[in-house]
Amino acid sequence: MSNNVNPLVMHAAPESIRTGAEARALFRSGDLEPFTQTTGMAPGFMQGSPVILPGDLAIDFATFCQRNPKPCPIVATSERGSAALPTFGADIDVRTDIGGYRVWRHGELVDEVSDIRDLWRDDFVTFVVGCSYSFEAALLGDGLELRHISEGCCVPMYMSSIPLAPAGLFGGTMGVSMRPFRAADAIRAIEITSRFPLTHGTPVHIGDPALIGIERLDDPLVGDAVTVHDDELPVFWGCGITPQYSLLAARPDIAITHKPGCLLVGDIASRSDAMELPRLAA
Amino acid sequence: MSNNVNPLVMHAAPESIRTGAEARALFRSGDLEPFTQTTGMAPGFMQGSPVILPGDLAIDFATFCQRNPKPCPIVATSERGSAALPTFGADIDVRTDIGGYRVWRHGELVDEVSDIRDLWRDDFVTFVVGCSYSFEAALLGDGLELRHISEGCCVPMYMSSIPLAPAGLFGGTMGVSMRPFRAADAIRAIEITSRFPLTHGTPVHIGDPALIGIERLDDPLVGDAVTVHDDELPVFWGCGITPQYSLLAARPDIAITHKPGCLLVGDIASRSDAMELPRLAA
Repeated sequence: MSNNVNPLVMHAAPESIRTGAEARALFRSGDLEPFTQTTGMAPGFMQGSPVILPGDLAIDFATFCQRNPKPCPIVATSERGSAALPTFGADIDVRTDIGGYRVWRHGELVDEVSDIRDLWRDDFVTFVVGCSYSFEAALLGDGLELRHISEGCCVPMYMSSIPLAPAGLFGGTMGVSMRPFRAADAIRAIEITSRFPLTHGTPVHIGDPALIGIERLDDPLVGDAVTVHDDELPVFWGCGITPQYSLLAARPDIAITHKPGCLLVGDIASRSDAMELPRLAA
Repeated sequence: MSNNVNPLVMHAAPESIRTGAEARALFRSGDLEPFTQTTGMAPGFMQGSPVILPGDLAIDFATFCQRNPKPCPIVATSERGSAALPTFGADIDVRTDIGGYRVWRHGELVDEVSDIRDLWRDDFVTFVVGCSYSFEAALLGDGLELRHISEGCCVPMYMSSIPLAPAGLFGGTMGVSMRPFRAADAIRAIEITSRFPLTHGTPVHIGDPALIGIERLDDPLVGDAVTVHDDELPVFWGCGITPQYSLLAARPDIAITHKPGCLLVGDIASRSDAMELPRLAA
């Protein structure tokens, strides 16, 4: 795998990056080390997961996401062949503005790169899937404990048996993330996340994992296992791994996603809890 | 214009129709008079406005709606070439299950029919746009007065100067509907409609119509003028005429919409106030 690393780049400190525009400019110019994680970068600005795929699959993927908004909330879409995402951020170039990309051919990972200009096709369509950062900030802001943050690890994610509404080549079952809470906090978490439909919304399950086909909480598919105390309920939300898994199972000739942790940072407030994203400044 | 009327049809009384499936079966079989309005039909079941267009425009239209969810909330999408809408209702055939269709060529109305089987193309994609029936039922249920209902007429609709986020050929300004309320009721209406993102969500404007380019409330573009008392504020919501106007301005070689008042009746509860539509019964 190539990674396009330029050993001469200046390395900006991620915590010094205050806005989405700054983050994107630094990735674009090469002034940020390729594959720099965006966690904690530009606090308050929405981050999202890009899915870039050939135009002939785009309408079916859009339909798939429309039918499965909890795991696949679309916060922005490009026009065919355009690298811009004008409703997510000003002057975005999705070919250069992300810290790391994964390139998939026929569902197999073939490369990780920090620039996809040489792979770009004039039929590509980009979708940006909402991520859980926004609702997690709201939960923390309400005083709830997020166990994976307390334990300094990645939220545990699982493949459930919950069927997705298929569309075209896309289907399968829902990927979920899990956060444990005591009952009163679980209820409060449901109330809070109901305000965040664009970042997965309310949970899809609460309680016995076996009821949604998850046999072992201590063996997540992605991320890290976290402690679940005896007086706690595991609470499961639709997860952004879902569209990626479904996309790859469809084995398109090419698809480009982000390297985990390397999200696209927008100009929109991450606290957005409305159906319509705030308008960008002109 | 042809209207495919069969003078021998049995005419079921609309108020006797209890479910979406019954309504669709009656339209499909010809047992309901063509162009029968769906207002008051199958209470509790969601109704939506179909937009049927050629496949090569579908991804841009999907993007346009994604970028403008208040006027253009998509509650269901078909797969390319399929007349089914499995997430909106079981066994829907969008070619026969609606009481009346309008056929547009290059943006001009050319026909009104009650069956589009002979016009169907294997590249057609159908979008179902949420309508205001659901949130109006919630407002009425909370004890608010809806003036157009009190006055026995159609809600007034206007073209505003609020710019839409364009996508491909689609753009323009937002069509809005208006309902007058005293201040406390206006606030309550905003609170209630915030729970209905799939049926236009919260208002887009409140107060002075001139601020959104509307000069005269007594001269709506569509629907009927209603009384606005001196102690009331006009409250404006994004309106489903928006996608239709934008679609026609794009002048596609063919597009098919519903005849006003003739909506598609689904199997989903119209009270749906969640981001994800309820799953259909298996």
